[in-house]
Amino acid sequence: MDSRNIRLAVIPGDGIGVEVVAEGLKVLEAVGTKVETTTYDLGAKRYHETGETLPDVVLEELRGYDAILLGAVGDPSVPPGVLERDLLLKLRFRLDHYVNLRPVKLFPGVETPLGGVRPEDIDMIVVREGTEGPYAGAGGVMRHGTPHEIATQESLNTAFGVERVVRYAFDKALSRPRRRLTLVHKTNVLTYAGDLWARTVERVGREYPDVQTDYCHVDAASMFFVNQPGRFDVIVTDNLFGDILTDIGAAIAGGIGLAASGNVNPDRTAPSMFEPVHGSAPDIAGQGKADPTATILSVAMLLDHLGLDSEAARVEQAVADDLVERATGRAGRTTREIGDDITARVAG
Amino acid sequence: MDSRNIRLAVIPGDGIGVEVVAEGLKVLEAVGTKVETTTYDLGAKRYHETGETLPDVVLEELRGYDAILLGAVGDPSVPPGVLERDLLLKLRFRLDHYVNLRPVKLFPGVETPLGGVRPEDIDMIVVREGTEGPYAGAGGVMRHGTPHEIATQESLNTAFGVERVVRYAFDKALSRPRRRLTLVHKTNVLTYAGDLWARTVERVGREYPDVQTDYCHVDAASMFFVNQPGRFDVIVTDNLFGDILTDIGAAIAGGIGLAASGNVNPDRTAPSMFEPVHGSAPDIAGQGKADPTATILSVAMLLDHLGLDSEAARVEQAVADDLVERATGRAGRTTREIGDDITARVAG
Ligand SMILES: CC(C)[C@H](C(=O)O)[C@@H](O)C(=O)O
Ligand SMILES: CC(C)[C@H](C(=O)O)[C@@H](O)C(=O)O
Repeated sequence: MDSRNIRLAVIPGDGIGVEVVAEGLKVLEAVGTKVETTTYDLGAKRYHETGETLPDVVLEELRGYDAILLGAVGDPSVPPGVLERDLLLKLRFRLDHYVNLRPVKLFPGVETPLGGVRPEDIDMIVVREGTEGPYAGAGGVMRHGTPHEIATQESLNTAFGVERVVRYAFDKALSRPRRRLTLVHKTNVLTYAGDLWARTVERVGREYPDVQTDYCHVDAASMFFVNQPGRFDVIVTDNLFGDILTDIGAAIAGGIGLAASGNVNPDRTAPSMFEPVHGSAPDIAGQGKADPTATILSVAMLLDHLGLDSEAARVEQAVADDLVERATGRAGRTTREIGDDITARVAG
Repeated sequence: MDSRNIRLAVIPGDGIGVEVVAEGLKVLEAVGTKVETTTYDLGAKRYHETGETLPDVVLEELRGYDAILLGAVGDPSVPPGVLERDLLLKLRFRLDHYVNLRPVKLFPGVETPLGGVRPEDIDMIVVREGTEGPYAGAGGVMRHGTPHEIATQESLNTAFGVERVVRYAFDKALSRPRRRLTLVHKTNVLTYAGDLWARTVERVGREYPDVQTDYCHVDAASMFFVNQPGRFDVIVTDNLFGDILTDIGAAIAGGIGLAASGNVNPDRTAPSMFEPVHGSAPDIAGQGKADPTATILSVAMLLDHLGLDSEAARVEQAVADDLVERATGRAGRTTREIGDDITARVAG
């Protein structure tokens, strides 16, 4: 990888997506690796102009890149859910991003809404399934708009889909000092899906005697994120529970401005996609108010995914140093100023 | 109601359920209202002795009471989920407890894991649907235990079921100073179910011009519980999202030891059931370590439901006073001591 260019597809998307991606790219260039970027104008604007969200030809083209960097999609002018489903989720599904990797880590100097919690108390990684479960889009409506309407929504879970993400999570747990893996689900109510998840963790776990596993219902886990975050190391969970948990995770680790994620295809049959957890935040778009840090940390994950470990570590360290400095007074910087400061650290 | 006895069915259940219910009853008696209680031995013991969870004849008998007080069910000796589904959820479903009412309120003196938050910042009520959605138990498994297994789990939502709980929530919002109602769902992904919920809130909302409504995705709402809890007044949401949100709610409002709930049948076609949000906690059962406060607050909700408003207010005030005193040093009391202290306040 070191010897060749990174061929990167960039999807800035909507709202603050554009602003934060610009800073992420600046940092990426400062790393010194050769990067060749191609920008795709997917998002609200293209939707309005052409009615397209993610044309097949674009999807096929995207397959040719080493990775994708995405800002955020979604705009109030587009019917709710359209860009989320037909662009963002379609990318995750069609590029088989079956691991949605979301670290929940409190950096030193970062304020958390939790009192008395120190950075060492919040250091986990959520391995969220990315291609099935309640996100499958299955369901239907009958007698629409009448008093007798019925709406169903189905979670589709396969042994194939669950096992591969569970294996990934075990490997991840094995690579961490605490070697602990927690399955989060709601097995006492969602018995069919929950049973498949629980059996899979148990079976695969036999191959990982050095990883300590346990189980936590999603309601209890959500509570523990707030009052005992230290109990978690690696979490594996389904698409919907992972969505919820990682937003709580973002909250306790200093806010959505810092939460990074990778939509990973571990088999490398298609490029993985890195994006901040936050959305397009139309209310503050274009004002230089967005924090680009989540995107910059997503860039670090991207580098790590491409095998550029030391480059990834340098970016993460630059962010860590910047966060410490913020704590001692450098507040009120614009999106670009934060990006510039982190870029300078990476370059220097 | 004042002129007659309260006929109360009591289901202490398992583990700490037995201990906390004893204190709840003590407080109830101290209120001075005539109460006639009948205890039902449903739970793990009965299951082991007879294989029964909730026999039909018992269910029919329970219909004859004014209300039900439940402790907690569940024991490691029983296959996971059996008592939850065949006893607890069966009660909620068969007695048509379509409103699962869960206040999230930070009492003065109570420690919250959130730094810098004051009691006035956390004062909301979650109206959780109780009889349908992902809790319907619908789903199935194919090719069990093979690499080709598929497990489905279905959320069933009806206009009938959604509208009645939404109406209840609007009425509740109207009765509160802020008159604000937030729908929490995940409409951008769970489009069929989410759309029914969103349309229903919009339509019913037209009848409540004085209630300000808004919408929040469940992931964002979970985050806001932690970093902006003050933005919520009344929340209406589905069975599963309500389960998760109210455990986060318990965490931010001082822990599961204080979280009360009512499984309410507003049409009064069957008795409503009041229970602490916590479970049977087998690890601390029988040691006098459980906090009976959640049960005592559930008793207050029970009194309120039966129209005994001033009695309810007295119990809640007694709890509030006890909580303030705890803050100033009365730690380490046993379950019974806490019950005795609150009872004395109610009686005095
Ligand atoms: C925008 C939405 C579809 C998405 C999700 O639910 O996965 C977002 O919340 C996320 O977590 O990346
Ligand atoms: C025990 C379980 C079935 C139950 C639920 O999921 O409703 C519990 O978590 C609750 O919140 O009362």
